[in-house]
Amino acid sequence: MLKFYHAPWSRSSSILWLMEELGVPYEIELVDIRAKEGVPEAYRQIQPSKKVPAIVHDGLVVTERAAITIYLADRFPEAGLAPAFDHPDRAAYLTSLVYSDSVFDPVICANVQNFEYTGNQFPFGTFEDMVANIERRLTAHPFAAGDRFTAADTQLASGIAYTMNFMHALPERPIFKEYLARVEERPANRRAMEKDMELAAQVPFFAEAGAGA
Amino acid sequence: MLKFYHAPWSRSSSILWLMEELGVPYEIELVDIRAKEGVPEAYRQIQPSKKVPAIVHDGLVVTERAAITIYLADRFPEAGLAPAFDHPDRAAYLTSLVYSDSVFDPVICANVQNFEYTGNQFPFGTFEDMVANIERRLTAHPFAAGDRFTAADTQLASGIAYTMNFMHALPERPIFKEYLARVEERPANRRAMEKDMELAAQVPFFAEAGAGA
Ligand SMILES: N[C@@H](CCC(=O)N[C@@H](CS)C(=O)NCC(=O)O)C(=O)O
Ligand SMILES: N[C@@H](CCC(=O)N[C@@H](CS)C(=O)NCC(=O)O)C(=O)O
Repeated sequence: MLKFYHAPWSRSSSILWLMEELGVPYEIELVDIRAKEGVPEAYRQIQPSKKVPAIVHDGLVVTERAAITIYLADRFPEAGLAPAFDHPDRAAYLTSLVYSDSVFDPVICANVQNFEYTGNQFPFGTFEDMVANIERRLTAHPFAAGDRFTAADTQLASGIAYTMNFMHALPERPIFKEYLARVEERPANRRAMEKDMELAAQVPFFAEAGAGA
Repeated sequence: MLKFYHAPWSRSSSILWLMEELGVPYEIELVDIRAKEGVPEAYRQIQPSKKVPAIVHDGLVVTERAAITIYLADRFPEAGLAPAFDHPDRAAYLTSLVYSDSVFDPVICANVQNFEYTGNQFPFGTFEDMVANIERRLTAHPFAAGDRFTAADTQLASGIAYTMNFMHALPERPIFKEYLARVEERPANRRAMEKDMELAAQVPFFAEAGAGA
């Protein structure tokens, strides 16, 4: 029993991709985060800030994208998406996953909104340090956690794709494009993209804008 | 071989506490994050934003506090600080750890600095939602991940103690005080506090202010 609270074309899309990589049955519950009247208060029982993603697995709620990714990839080891506890890639794997939520995402938001702050005022530091770090990491290794694809790539690649190609909030570095090309050819990624397109057509916000058409 | 990059009285103090809970040998390398001339550029090889904490374990670098905590507690299971993969507390454990870094910390910073933003402009949401969530969780269960102390408490309790007692940036709710009273009686917490006091005396910033005296 795996239930997934999702909004198309949002941060939760990386979890949609992860679900397809895992290859386990799951049920989607759409949360209309763009609804004019707001997300129903009852949803706070699941996600305390009324955000997506969230999952319920065997009656247990997991929120925070990095936590969901770590939880699922460890819980379904057959998919081979998480380095084991004692595998050398575990260090970079966990670092990359947490970094996507605690640094990458908020830094992008702060930059897009022209927030003025110095690097040490926020735990997420500066935009420049973040871009340099991602670039350095992907130059050293083809994937987020090293030489093979892991669940950390569903978050890092989704983040790069969305912010570079769609928001234009990340510089278009060749190394980022090469990385996306490597991961986007995965069948699970394509299935997730198609599914998100279909789901968007069910959401008034996108349906009215003609998305999914 | 476990090396720990630390600055006294900072976010890395929760890792100092964790190290004492783990009961494994470790070596501290002080990083003077308050130095007038800044942190040496060479440290960026370890932590890409030149922040603390960071660890090097068997030659592997782990950064981001939640990642370090998850990594260490799983890697040293004898300490009993992490619910196993298939334990029901694993869900809340991971959620709480990631939340401390991706929501709790940045929300506190944004609030202290009077940043103006709406809940959906940032993945960390609003201050009110965060306070209500922590309060609800600690009302439902005595510890971050449920009925027993885990490594998630080293982060949650450190965060509450620092922001409530020292920064006065978190409301003084009885439930927060009771929670701190429960965890602060742990011998490892006391050892860490004493060690941090001694270490502070070696840092010019604190030594000049008479700390550790
Ligand atoms: N810290 C959360 C952030 C999730 C988040 O920001 N989700 C956005 C979607 S991109 C959302 O639900 N926004 C709706 C809102 O804030 O009202 C996580 O990492 O899971
Ligand atoms: N995202 C990092 C944030 C760490 C952080 O903000 N550390 C502060 C200490 S409280 C720091 O090193 N500040 C020094 C600086 O930014 O120059 C993590 O979770 O580990």
